[in-house]
Amino acid sequence: MLNKVLIYSRFPKAMMLRIGERFELMDAGGKPPGEVFAADQLAGVSAMITAGGTPLGGAMMDMMPKLGAIVCYGTGYDGVDLVAAAQRGIAVGHSPAANAAAVADLAVTLMLAVTRRLLPADDFVRNGSWAAAKPSPLMRPQPGNPGRRVGVYGMGEIGRKIAARVAAFETEVAYFSRSRHDVPYQYLPSLEALAEWSSVLMIAVRAGADTHHAVDANILRKLGKGGYIVNISRGSVIDERALVAALAEESIAGAGLDVYETEPHAPDALTAFPNVVLTPHIGGHTLESHTAMQNCVIANLEAFFAGEPLPHAVRGA
Amino acid sequence: MLNKVLIYSRFPKAMMLRIGERFELMDAGGKPPGEVFAADQLAGVSAMITAGGTPLGGAMMDMMPKLGAIVCYGTGYDGVDLVAAAQRGIAVGHSPAANAAAVADLAVTLMLAVTRRLLPADDFVRNGSWAAAKPSPLMRPQPGNPGRRVGVYGMGEIGRKIAARVAAFETEVAYFSRSRHDVPYQYLPSLEALAEWSSVLMIAVRAGADTHHAVDANILRKLGKGGYIVNISRGSVIDERALVAALAEESIAGAGLDVYETEPHAPDALTAFPNVVLTPHIGGHTLESHTAMQNCVIANLEAFFAGEPLPHAVRGA
Repeated sequence: MLNKVLIYSRFPKAMMLRIGERFELMDAGGKPPGEVFAADQLAGVSAMITAGGTPLGGAMMDMMPKLGAIVCYGTGYDGVDLVAAAQRGIAVGHSPAANAAAVADLAVTLMLAVTRRLLPADDFVRNGSWAAAKPSPLMRPQPGNPGRRVGVYGMGEIGRKIAARVAAFETEVAYFSRSRHDVPYQYLPSLEALAEWSSVLMIAVRAGADTHHAVDANILRKLGKGGYIVNISRGSVIDERALVAALAEESIAGAGLDVYETEPHAPDALTAFPNVVLTPHIGGHTLESHTAMQNCVIANLEAFFAGEPLPHAVRGA
Repeated sequence: MLNKVLIYSRFPKAMMLRIGERFELMDAGGKPPGEVFAADQLAGVSAMITAGGTPLGGAMMDMMPKLGAIVCYGTGYDGVDLVAAAQRGIAVGHSPAANAAAVADLAVTLMLAVTRRLLPADDFVRNGSWAAAKPSPLMRPQPGNPGRRVGVYGMGEIGRKIAARVAAFETEVAYFSRSRHDVPYQYLPSLEALAEWSSVLMIAVRAGADTHHAVDANILRKLGKGGYIVNISRGSVIDERALVAALAEESIAGAGLDVYETEPHAPDALTAFPNVVLTPHIGGHTLESHTAMQNCVIANLEAFFAGEPLPHAVRGA
């Protein structure tokens, strides 16, 4: 008999196929599990899979008194109350670095697309303006990459991969993170200093209480009129209202965003701008990245059911 | 008195500002010069600026018997009849490498955008499908970059810069060009072999009679179902009908194009596909690249009027 595993967040079925071959999945489909399953069913749950960004607090954990493992699909675990989990002796696992290349690739894709006005350019061709020789202010030449100052906020696995990629475009790279790393990029002592220095600010920091709204109106002001912001981390790191205001006032040049404060919603005010590129939280969404994340989920669950420590445990959890 | 220079192709005024400070420009605005200027005006022209892709043959040169210099704005000179120019003792200059970084950057932007389905992703957010949890086949996970085989056709300045950039995405890089180069990438003996090997084929070869329709139905078949093609060189290198057919049959996965057979027209059949990214020949279109190209144009013209050889002459012209 297969071990039972609750699926807490909403995941496309395709992502759970391989996991479903090894475990009996109780899929709550993103709804509160208490609405989908009877109390005694929940009482039997000892392991669950969640998306790291989905809120998961002590009250929910208490509905599953046998819960011993919370396994996040992906790198993030910001939605999980780690203190509540620790108090209940619940192990928390994730998929560290499994999606780092895919996320870094998307970050650079967003940077290149927004700084080069790729979407307006494609539209200019498709809507016939090019053939009609119709001038467009959006098609004016923009600054290129050589010599561009790219600031990376956060120097974990994803930040390093972003830095290595953008450096190949003949840019200058600097970074800020809690601590200095042994990397060949200039370290700046604060996010403020990094924003002031950067012409593109890449957000690659881990989300959490300490980084909530770290990018606020002040940081955006420091980034300035010619500056772009790219976020592939979590929506919570940017004060989205301040970002919309900065775009509306044209006090920054544009934004490339994969994450938002309230997903799956990008504010209407944001979707109205031509100088933004918006993707639906697909940073880790490549075939290889999903396979790697699933491998971590499976390894974590198999270890848990074998009574062993999680091989991909959240540090400090 | 400033020396007179004919502007033969249609250029935005902004691109000619700095050149216009040094020379008296006779702007034909892309029309046949005989329609815009009187015969005796043309008879006085000794130097002209053209876009390299604009057809310029012996008959046109004969309308300007004093013509001594044809200066191309940009790297290409495929529109200029070099034999006719040589027969008339007309020097031909261009702006070699001035736009290489900008063009290579756009090539990589197109590759990243088309392989990651960036445009459908942005549309998915903007049209509300994400918020409505509406499934879309276009949003299925795609292969990522690590391990991806990127084939570069042509290993000039632009090809090298493309290769250096894509290598930073943890891809494998190979190339084919007329001759082997001292570069750290695998050399394949033919375009056919390169297409067969590649999952993304980047066209960075110089346009000319020998590369006309080099990418035909056979090459596209070799590229195969999962393969992408990116072209930032010239539209003439690809048989556009064969490309449209391959996209319609889904015998390749997608295309990123900056250049077309008949500019400024992208065929309607092409603009209907969701798995293509189309830009209006903006490869060299960055601020720094324009400045560098203008510097070459000015240096070529100043040397010509001083009776010196062009510093940026087309080799063999």
